Amino acid sequence: MPAKQIPDIVVGRLPIYLRELSFLAAEGVAVTSSFELAKRLGVSAAQIRKDLSHFGEFGKQGTGYNVGYLRDQLRRILKVDHEWPIALIGIGDLGRALAHYGGFVNRGFRVAALFDNDPAKIGQRVGDLEIMSADRLADIVREYGIRVAMIAAPAAQAQKIAETCIAAGIQAILNYALITLSVPDGVRVQNLDPVAHLQRMTHYL
Amino acid sequence: MPAKQIPDIVVGRLPIYLRELSFLAAEGVAVTSSFELAKRLGVSAAQIRKDLSHFGEFGKQGTGYNVGYLRDQLRRILKVDHEWPIALIGIGDLGRALAHYGGFVNRGFRVAALFDNDPAKIGQRVGDLEIMSADRLADIVREYGIRVAMIAAPAAQAQKIAETCIAAGIQAILNYALITLSVPDGVRVQNLDPVAHLQRMTHYL
Repeated sequence: MPAKQIPDIVVGRLPIYLRELSFLAAEGVAVTSSFELAKRLGVSAAQIRKDLSHFGEFGKQGTGYNVGYLRDQLRRILKVDHEWPIALIGIGDLGRALAHYGGFVNRGFRVAALFDNDPAKIGQRVGDLEIMSADRLADIVREYGIRVAMIAAPAAQAQKIAETCIAAGIQAILNYALITLSVPDGVRVQNLDPVAHLQRMTHYL
Repeated sequence: MPAKQIPDIVVGRLPIYLRELSFLAAEGVAVTSSFELAKRLGVSAAQIRKDLSHFGEFGKQGTGYNVGYLRDQLRRILKVDHEWPIALIGIGDLGRALAHYGGFVNRGFRVAALFDNDPAKIGQRVGDLEIMSADRLADIVREYGIRVAMIAAPAAQAQKIAETCIAAGIQAILNYALITLSVPDGVRVQNLDPVAHLQRMTHYL
């Protein structure tokens, strides 16, 4: 697996390149360059070229990148050339916003099942989906082969939810709970804590 | 400014250390070590020691860190030893969730003003705050000296909103819109795109 040798920080930048390429393609732009991408993204052209070089040869010196081709290659590398169903656990304000979120469309993900442990919420509809009891989480994840989860539950419940998810086959967790999840090797976790991102900026103010 | 020489990636990890130290302090733990922190956070003890060493000497070999002291020092370094008011622009599902979000409390931030350009929303209350017209954004930001903004508006409006914010004195933007904002030097932007975080994980599945 060559992917194992590529720094995760490089992998982490590919989604930003992919987003911009998809935007360019939607605008009808056929060819771009590391310089143009760099300018749009506020990074250096050398970094873009170096990051992409880990995965192959995507452009020729002087002729630039074919936007559609590079976009498709990045989709393949990030494995979003198909759609991943997501189990979303914790349907409070944030969970509802995620269930409604329009940004998943055409980007490789679809919220496929909603779970909460509040009896008052179970059975409610959010968009096209019905909130299910958290008791059914493991069965549904297994039945549908879901491998990606988003946890928007309170911190006190998040570790137990993660363990249930993982035992049922979840391998990637986007964690909104304000707790560092303990997970076995081979399971990926990304944390989305808006305060951590804010604090990273206020340091410089 | 010594802060300028410290890699931003190091600064980006400090909020995670701070969160864990705050958690330990709340649990009544008085002393910790780089090994214990590392174990809890799933990183290496050497990385924690090296990251902290950029900012000073916080513990003695063999005696560990004083939890409360290190927490307070990190608060000072990240400039969250006081509370920053935030202007939140775009009160859709996500904006509402952010307005209600409990994770800001005691972590250096407070949503202080809500803005939208939808006449149907202006005047509505969300918690203690009333949604104001986006036309008032610049005046309010100036009047209250707000320096931090969160943009949860649609992509098509985000660049213009950012420019209004920046002209009025905003220096740090947490951007939820699916667009790369173009900002002048000296203005910080952090992007929160859940799909980018998901794609970073699916690459490995």
